[in-house]
Amino acid sequence: MEGLRLCEELVRSDFYVEQILYCSSTLASTRGKRLLETCRKHNITSAEIDAGSFKKISSTVNAQGIAAITRTREMDPWRFIRPAGNRTLIALWNVKDPGNLGTIIRSAAWFGIDAVLTSTECAEATNPKTARATMGALFYLPVFEGLNFSEALPALTTMGYHIRHAEVGGEICIKDASFSERNVILLGGETNPLPRHLAEWVAATVRIPRFGYGDSLNVAAAAAILMAELKMRSPRH
Amino acid sequence: MEGLRLCEELVRSDFYVEQILYCSSTLASTRGKRLLETCRKHNITSAEIDAGSFKKISSTVNAQGIAAITRTREMDPWRFIRPAGNRTLIALWNVKDPGNLGTIIRSAAWFGIDAVLTSTECAEATNPKTARATMGALFYLPVFEGLNFSEALPALTTMGYHIRHAEVGGEICIKDASFSERNVILLGGETNPLPRHLAEWVAATVRIPRFGYGDSLNVAAAAAILMAELKMRSPRH
Repeated sequence: MEGLRLCEELVRSDFYVEQILYCSSTLASTRGKRLLETCRKHNITSAEIDAGSFKKISSTVNAQGIAAITRTREMDPWRFIRPAGNRTLIALWNVKDPGNLGTIIRSAAWFGIDAVLTSTECAEATNPKTARATMGALFYLPVFEGLNFSEALPALTTMGYHIRHAEVGGEICIKDASFSERNVILLGGETNPLPRHLAEWVAATVRIPRFGYGDSLNVAAAAAILMAELKMRSPRH
Repeated sequence: MEGLRLCEELVRSDFYVEQILYCSSTLASTRGKRLLETCRKHNITSAEIDAGSFKKISSTVNAQGIAAITRTREMDPWRFIRPAGNRTLIALWNVKDPGNLGTIIRSAAWFGIDAVLTSTECAEATNPKTARATMGALFYLPVFEGLNFSEALPALTTMGYHIRHAEVGGEICIKDASFSERNVILLGGETNPLPRHLAEWVAATVRIPRFGYGDSLNVAAAAAILMAELKMRSPRH
């Protein structure tokens, strides 16, 4: 995980941090110094490395000179998804752009979505571009990656989830859609239609109405609208 | 303008196309061939160039081998913005990421927003990354770029526009916000607060309620939610 912001969020979260690597430039900024102090307090090892070595491990052009080594969490998605109770999940099929995936995870954390599920074809949540776009939301929200949707969608249906697929030609306008206690919002695929063996598990298709021009919305923009619409209806807001 | 999709949208629009440049690979695809045929019908000059020359003009790693030379439209924003009547504008301050700017333009076209205004600090609409993210919406929606907001915001107010600034700590929840006939939704700045000399022209600050975690939403996600909320309320949808 690279960059000051991501490292700050990581250290603040309950993720395990193996080590922080930083260049001397980090010591020149107040935020950088504060972060290294926090690491010392939490017994997180940190090591200064030179700018040349940092460049080798960095994936960005304008590296900030700070990175953290962490471990992905192993968690059984079904132990989380199965138990009874109100729950809203975002299921992403074929979302290949890491920026879009990261933005969706960031929005999902903001709207208190319970988990994000991704299909095998999606970008990886730990891809540096994805992680950066999440702005740290990755450390707060369960993301279950690389699921086989031919198995996951029927399993979700069996567990009482209603799967609503958002698509341009959806039958119900999102404004008129009703939601149940256990919701899955299925998005993605952009140019490809959802294959039949997945579509058969969809309880309803929903659309975001178009008032102007265009073939579609960006998938992260569409996801944000759907989450906002679903959550802002609840009396709790 | 580079890539098959953008070139298709450009040729379909009423923008002036000076020339299409393509590699032989374009002739191998049905869509590519169809586009070149359309160009011939519309008397648009096209020229085949070799892959090496194309690489020199291309700004993408995986170039599709097709590009168009076009002209930006010179249009006086005020001649468009001033006339009486219902109008909704998106004003972007300090949106430096071209992907975010492009996504906002795409959403604005979808929701029938009348124009997008950008401040001097924003990314350029004709930046290849911005153009790609618009998916061609750039050719359908007026985008007035590089405006000095210290002059533009008071001018808009004088013309009867109500400026609503979307920010995390906004005083009115977007669900309870009222809109007038002439609306400006002002967004941007991410980490920087709106400077006082601009904030004084803001009629109201609005917020998107948070149900979970995070400091903020991505600006393009926030813009999509605001446009959807505003437009879906109108009885016309």
